[in-house]
Amino acid sequence: MTSDTTNLLIVSAHAADFVWRAGGAAALTTARGGRVTIVCLSYGERGESARYWRQGLDLEQVKAARHREAAAAAEVLGAELRTLDVGDYPIVETDELLDELVRIYREVQPTAVLTHTTVDPWNTDHPLASRLAQKARIIAQAPGYQPGEKVLGAPPVFLFEPHQSEYCEFRPEVLLDITEVWPTKLEAMRCMEGQEHLWDYYTDVAKRRGVQARRNSGPNLGLTTDAMAEAYMRVFPQVADQLA
Amino acid sequence: MTSDTTNLLIVSAHAADFVWRAGGAAALTTARGGRVTIVCLSYGERGESARYWRQGLDLEQVKAARHREAAAAAEVLGAELRTLDVGDYPIVETDELLDELVRIYREVQPTAVLTHTTVDPWNTDHPLASRLAQKARIIAQAPGYQPGEKVLGAPPVFLFEPHQSEYCEFRPEVLLDITEVWPTKLEAMRCMEGQEHLWDYYTDVAKRRGVQARRNSGPNLGLTTDAMAEAYMRVFPQVADQLA
Amino acid sequence: MTSDTTNLLIVSAHAADFVWRAGGAAALTTARGGRVTIVCLSYGERGESARYWRQGLDLEQVKAARHREAAAAAEVLGAELRTLDVGDYPIVETDELLDELVRIYREVQPTAVLTHTTVDPWNTDHPLASRLAQKARIIAQAPGYQPGEKVLGAPPVFLFEPHQSEYCEFRPEVLLDITEVWPTKLEAMRCMEGQEHLWDYYTDVAKRRGVQARRNSGPNLGLTTDAMAEAYMRVFPQVADQLA
Amino acid sequence: MTSDTTNLLIVSAHAADFVWRAGGAAALTTARGGRVTIVCLSYGERGESARYWRQGLDLEQVKAARHREAAAAAEVLGAELRTLDVGDYPIVETDELLDELVRIYREVQPTAVLTHTTVDPWNTDHPLASRLAQKARIIAQAPGYQPGEKVLGAPPVFLFEPHQSEYCEFRPEVLLDITEVWPTKLEAMRCMEGQEHLWDYYTDVAKRRGVQARRNSGPNLGLTTDAMAEAYMRVFPQVADQLA
Amino acid sequence: MTSDTTNLLIVSAHAADFVWRAGGAAALTTARGGRVTIVCLSYGERGESARYWRQGLDLEQVKAARHREAAAAAEVLGAELRTLDVGDYPIVETDELLDELVRIYREVQPTAVLTHTTVDPWNTDHPLASRLAQKARIIAQAPGYQPGEKVLGAPPVFLFEPHQSEYCEFRPEVLLDITEVWPTKLEAMRCMEGQEHLWDYYTDVAKRRGVQARRNSGPNLGLTTDAMAEAYMRVFPQVADQLA
Amino acid sequence: MTSDTTNLLIVSAHAADFVWRAGGAAALTTARGGRVTIVCLSYGERGESARYWRQGLDLEQVKAARHREAAAAAEVLGAELRTLDVGDYPIVETDELLDELVRIYREVQPTAVLTHTTVDPWNTDHPLASRLAQKARIIAQAPGYQPGEKVLGAPPVFLFEPHQSEYCEFRPEVLLDITEVWPTKLEAMRCMEGQEHLWDYYTDVAKRRGVQARRNSGPNLGLTTDAMAEAYMRVFPQVADQLA
Repeated sequence: MTSDTTNLLIVSAHAADFVWRAGGAAALTTARGGRVTIVCLSYGERGESARYWRQGLDLEQVKAARHREAAAAAEVLGAELRTLDVGDYPIVETDELLDELVRIYREVQPTAVLTHTTVDPWNTDHPLASRLAQKARIIAQAPGYQPGEKVLGAPPVFLFEPHQSEYCEFRPEVLLDITEVWPTKLEAMRCMEGQEHLWDYYTDVAKRRGVQARRNSGPNLGLTTDAMAEAYMRVFPQVADQLA
Repeated sequence: MTSDTTNLLIVSAHAADFVWRAGGAAALTTARGGRVTIVCLSYGERGESARYWRQGLDLEQVKAARHREAAAAAEVLGAELRTLDVGDYPIVETDELLDELVRIYREVQPTAVLTHTTVDPWNTDHPLASRLAQKARIIAQAPGYQPGEKVLGAPPVFLFEPHQSEYCEFRPEVLLDITEVWPTKLEAMRCMEGQEHLWDYYTDVAKRRGVQARRNSGPNLGLTTDAMAEAYMRVFPQVADQLA
Repeated sequence: MTSDTTNLLIVSAHAADFVWRAGGAAALTTARGGRVTIVCLSYGERGESARYWRQGLDLEQVKAARHREAAAAAEVLGAELRTLDVGDYPIVETDELLDELVRIYREVQPTAVLTHTTVDPWNTDHPLASRLAQKARIIAQAPGYQPGEKVLGAPPVFLFEPHQSEYCEFRPEVLLDITEVWPTKLEAMRCMEGQEHLWDYYTDVAKRRGVQARRNSGPNLGLTTDAMAEAYMRVFPQVADQLA
Repeated sequence: MTSDTTNLLIVSAHAADFVWRAGGAAALTTARGGRVTIVCLSYGERGESARYWRQGLDLEQVKAARHREAAAAAEVLGAELRTLDVGDYPIVETDELLDELVRIYREVQPTAVLTHTTVDPWNTDHPLASRLAQKARIIAQAPGYQPGEKVLGAPPVFLFEPHQSEYCEFRPEVLLDITEVWPTKLEAMRCMEGQEHLWDYYTDVAKRRGVQARRNSGPNLGLTTDAMAEAYMRVFPQVADQLA
Repeated sequence: MTSDTTNLLIVSAHAADFVWRAGGAAALTTARGGRVTIVCLSYGERGESARYWRQGLDLEQVKAARHREAAAAAEVLGAELRTLDVGDYPIVETDELLDELVRIYREVQPTAVLTHTTVDPWNTDHPLASRLAQKARIIAQAPGYQPGEKVLGAPPVFLFEPHQSEYCEFRPEVLLDITEVWPTKLEAMRCMEGQEHLWDYYTDVAKRRGVQARRNSGPNLGLTTDAMAEAYMRVFPQVADQLA
Repeated sequence: MTSDTTNLLIVSAHAADFVWRAGGAAALTTARGGRVTIVCLSYGERGESARYWRQGLDLEQVKAARHREAAAAAEVLGAELRTLDVGDYPIVETDELLDELVRIYREVQPTAVLTHTTVDPWNTDHPLASRLAQKARIIAQAPGYQPGEKVLGAPPVFLFEPHQSEYCEFRPEVLLDITEVWPTKLEAMRCMEGQEHLWDYYTDVAKRRGVQARRNSGPNLGLTTDAMAEAYMRVFPQVADQLA
C-alpha cells in the first residue's frame, strides 16, 4: 500500500499547527518516499507565542523563534516548509495571498490537501485558512485562470482534528494509523520547545484516536493495543473501488 | 486491490432492495473471488409487489413470484440468498428474528456489512431493517452471548443510497466505481421483471453517481466519462494507513 | 383557493392536543366546506389532567371529563372526533392500535395528515403518536395489506408546533393564516375549561406566528397587523406547479 | 393557478447556471404570462468554459461566446438577461456590485427570487452569489437606503438544486412540475452548445425529480409517469391559507 | 448568587437590539451592583427606523432620534452606551472597526459577552455583528496584539434570541429569569417610542420563555406562574463545579 | 456553592458505565454531603465482561464478579447502588422495567439525572438505557400514574460523554471540574480490576476535558493546569438567575 506518488499539501494557519495536527500524516508519507509541502500562512506570532512575549521578545524576534521551531519540525518530518508571513490574529484575506496559494497548488500539484476545519469558535484564523485553502484549490482548477498553465485536478481535502471537535462540526471520518512513525512525530513536536505541555496533550489525543482505530478496524489491519492515530474529516466523498 | 478475502453481508428489508441499491458492490466482490451473502427479511409481498396484486395473485403466489425474482438476481450476482420471510408492512422486531440475524453474523463472519439508512420517511421497514442489522452485529460481538462461539469482529457498515437521499440524512461518503460490473448489475435488475421503469431509474442514478465519482477522483483512479457508481454512507470512521 | 375536497386527518396523542396545535387548520377547513376527522389516541388522563386529579376524580371520571371537553371542542370546530382510549403515559404501540389506524386511513382517505413532531424531550407520547400515524399511513398504501380494499394515496403530512420548538427539531415551514377563524379556535380552546392559562398562552403563540407570517408574505396575501397563524413543518417535499 | 403577476428574479453566478437549474421555472412563468429577469454576475469565463479554452480562444472571445449562449437560452425561455461581467473564479464582493443588485431589486420588484445554495464545497462562486443576492434583497427593503425610492417587499427566496445536493445542505422542499414546458427547457439547454453531456445529465435529474414529485403528490395534481420536475429549497417559511 | 463583579459587554448591531433582546440581563446585572457596557455598531438608521423615514426626517435626524432613544433606554437599564456609528444595511467590516472593538474588550475586560446569532436569513447585519464581536474577543486574547496591554481572559459568549429562532440555528440553552427586573425592561422598551407594537411582542416572548423556564426548573428555583425570562444560547461549553 | 440538597440519580446500562462516565460527579456530590443513587440496568455480563469469559467463568459467576466490582466502586464514591439485573446485549424494554424505574424516580426524587446519550452506533444498550431513563422520568411526573403518590418535579437530565463523542451527537455543554475528587474517582476506577487499560484511558479523557475547562473558564473559577473534568450534555435548557 506504500505509494511513492503521494504528494501532500498541508495548509497551516500558524507555524505550529501542522506539527500537532498532521505531523503523523506527513511523516508517514515521507517515510514511504512521498512528498510533503507545508504552507504556514503566518507564524502565529501574535496569538500563539505567549511564552516568547512573556520573555520580552519583540515581534521580529518572536517570528524568528517561531520560524526556527517550524523549520526544525519540518526537517524532522522530511517535509518542505514555506512560510508566507502574512500576519496573524487576524489573518486577512487578500487577492495577493489567494493568488500565491493558487500558484503553489499549480506548482505542487498535490494528490491530497490537509487543512483546518471551517468552523472553530475558539480561533478565527483556522477557519479562514481553511476557506482560503479550499478557494485557492478551486481557482487552481479553472482553465481560464492564467490560461496555459497546467490546471489542478481534484485532490481530496482532509480537515485536521481541532481542539474541541464537538463544537467545530468535526467528525473523525478517517482514523490514520501513525503507529510506525510515532517516534518521528514526537520528535517533531519536541521541536516546539516552549510548549512541553502540548507534547503530552497530543500524545494523549493520539492514544485515544488509536484506541478508536483499533475498535473500528476490520480483521486485516492488525492494529495493536499501542496504536497511535490521527483523525481527519473529508470534505468530499471518497471514490473507491471496493468497500472496506 | 482485488481481495479474495472480501466477505459481504447484505441485509435487505424486502426481496428487491439489494439489487437496486447494492447490486454493483455484490457483483464487484464476486467477480474478484470474494463472497457475498444476502439476507432478505421479507419478500416485500405486501408493500412492494403492486403489479402482482393487480394481476390477482394471492399472498403465497406473490411471495413465490418475488422469491423467484430475488433468487435469479442473486444468482446473476454470484451471491448466496437467504430469505427469512418475516412479513412486511410492517416488518416487526422479534427476539427470534434478532437471534437469527446474530447467528448469521457469527456463521458468515462478514468483512463488511451493507444495509439501509436508519431514516426514511417514505418507508418504515427500511430503517427497521437497518436497526436490526446494526443491533445484531453488536450482539454478535458480545463474548457472553452464546459463549464459546466465535464472536464477530468489527466489520464496517455501509448504508445504501435511499430513494430521496436528502430527506434520509444520507451523504454519499463513498462512491464505489462499478463500471466494470455494470452489465452484471443491469442483468440482475432485469430479473425484476415487473419493474422495467426502475431499470432505467437506477441506470440514471448510477450514471449520476458516476459523474460525481469522476469529478471527485484524484489523478490515479482513471475513471472514464461513462463511469457508473453506487453511493454509500459509512456508520463508523474509516481506519486507514494513508490519506487518499 | 377554497377547496371542498379538503379532508384532514388529525392524529392527536391526547384529548386536547388537537385544539391548541391544529384548531385553526380544522376550523379553516370546515368553514370552507371541507372535512376534518380527529383521532385522539388517549384522553391524556394520566399525564395531562392535573386539575382533575387535584379535584379528587378517579380514572374513569377523569376520562369522562376529558371526553366531554374534547367532544365540545370538536363540535365547535365542525370536526368528527374519534377517541381510541388506549391509555397514556405511556401510550404503548400494539398491533391492534396500528391496525385500527390503518383502517381509519383507508376509510377516511385524507388529503392531508396532521400530527405531532417525532422529537420531544418533554413528552414521549407525542413522538410515539407521530411515528404511529406515519407508519399506519405507509401500511395503508400497501396493496397487499387487506388486498381488495382501496389503498391510500400519498397525502402530505404536517407536524404540529410543539411546546419548545427549538429542542424538537421543528422548523415552521408553513405559516397558516388562521385570522378569519380565530374566534372559532378561541371558542374551541375555551372548551378546555381547566386550562385557562393555556388560552392566553396559545393566543400569544398565534399572534407571534401571525407577525412572522406577515413579515414573510409576498405582496398578494394581504395579511394585516392583527394576523393570527399556526406553524407547521412538512415531512415530505411540497409538489407545486408554481414557485410562490 | 396561472398568475400573470408572477415576476421572477434569478441571480446566477455564471452564464449557464440559470439554464440547468431554473430553466423550467423560467419557462413555466413566461408561458403563463409572467415576467422573468435573469442576472448573471459573470460569464463563468475562467472556471466553466473549458471547451473554449481548449479551442484556443482568448478571454474576450470566451466571454463573447458565453454571452451568445446565455442570450440565446434566455430568449428561448422568454426571459430578460442582464450580464454584470464582474469576473469569476473568484467572483469578488464589492460595494458597487452590491449597490447594482439593490438597484435591480428595486427596479424589478420581484415576487420571488431564485439563486444558488449558500454551501457548495465544489464551487465558491455559487455560495457567494447566493449571499450577495440575499444581502441585496435585505438592503433593498431598508427605507433609509436611497430614501424616496420604492422599497422591496418580502419576496420568497428559492435555492437551486446544486450538483451534489447532500454535501450542500440542500433539501428539495419544493418539487416544481415542469412537464408542460420541458421541451422549452431542453431547447434552452441545447443553446449551451459545448456541453452536450450536460443536456443528458440534467434530463436525468429532471426525470428523477419527476418520479419523486409523483410519489409525493396528492390525488389532485394528476402527475403522469413521464413527469419532469425541478427541485428547490426555501430560505423562509411558506405563508399559506391552506395546508396542501 | 448576586455578584458585584459581573461585567457584561453587549454588542448590538443596531441601536435598539439590546433593549428587546438583552434588556433583562442588563437590568438584572446593574440591579445587583454589576456593570454593563453596550456597544451599538450602528443606529439602524437605514434599516430599522421606518417610522422616522415616513415622518420625512433626513439621515442625520434619524440617527439623532435613534441615539436619543437608545441613550434613554441604556439609562433606564443603568448601563453605559457606546455608539460607533459605522452605518447599517449593510454594516461593513473594516480593520478600524475591528481594532476599536478589540480596544473596548481590553478596556472593559468583560466577564461575559452578549451578542447576536451568527445565522439570520432576515438580517445580514446581525450575523456580521456577532462575527465581529467574536473575532475581536479572540484577537483581544492574543499577547502579541499591542503587546504590553492587559490581554482578555475567556469570558463566555451568550447569543440573543433572534426573531425566528428555528431558522437561525438558535436553541435556548439558558433561560434567564428576569421576573424581578421586568418593570425595568418594560420601561426601557418604552423608550423606543415609535415601536409600541414591539412592546407587546416582546412582552409575549418573555412570558412564553417564562413558562418554559418554570417547566424546566428544578424544585429550588421557585419560579412563579408569572415568571418572565430571556433566552440565550452559549457559544462555548459551560464550566461548572456542580451539575444543576 | 456546596449544596447538601443535591440528590443525583444515575442510570447506567451496565455495571461499570457509571464509574468511567460519572464517577467524578458522584464523588463531588457525596463529598459535599449530597446523595447519589446509581441504577445499573444490567451487569454488562454478556457484552462488557470479556476478561471473565476468557477466564472460563459461567454466566452467574460473571454477574457475581461484576456485582462485586460495581459495589466496591459505589462504596468508594459514597453512593447507593441498585442493580436491576435485566440482562444485556440486548437490554430489552418491558413494562415491568419501566414501572420499576418510575417507582425509583418517585422514591428518590432526584434533583438531577445522569444517563447515556440517545445515539451510539457502537452500543445499542446505551441509547436504550437513556430512552428508558427519560421515559420513566416523564411518567413519574404524571399525576394520574399511581395517583396519590408524590409526583416527580422537573429535574434536569445530563448525558454522559460517550466513547466516540462526534458520532453520538454529543456536545460537551457542561465541563464539570472534578479536580478535588479525582483521587476518589481513580480509586473507584481501580475497583474495575480487569480493565486496567481503561484506568489510563479515562485519566487521559479527564485531563483533556480539564484542559478545555481551563481554556473556557472565566477569571473567577481559578482552574489550575492540572485540572481534571468530566463532560456532560444537557437534554433541557438551563434555567438560571445570572449569565455566567
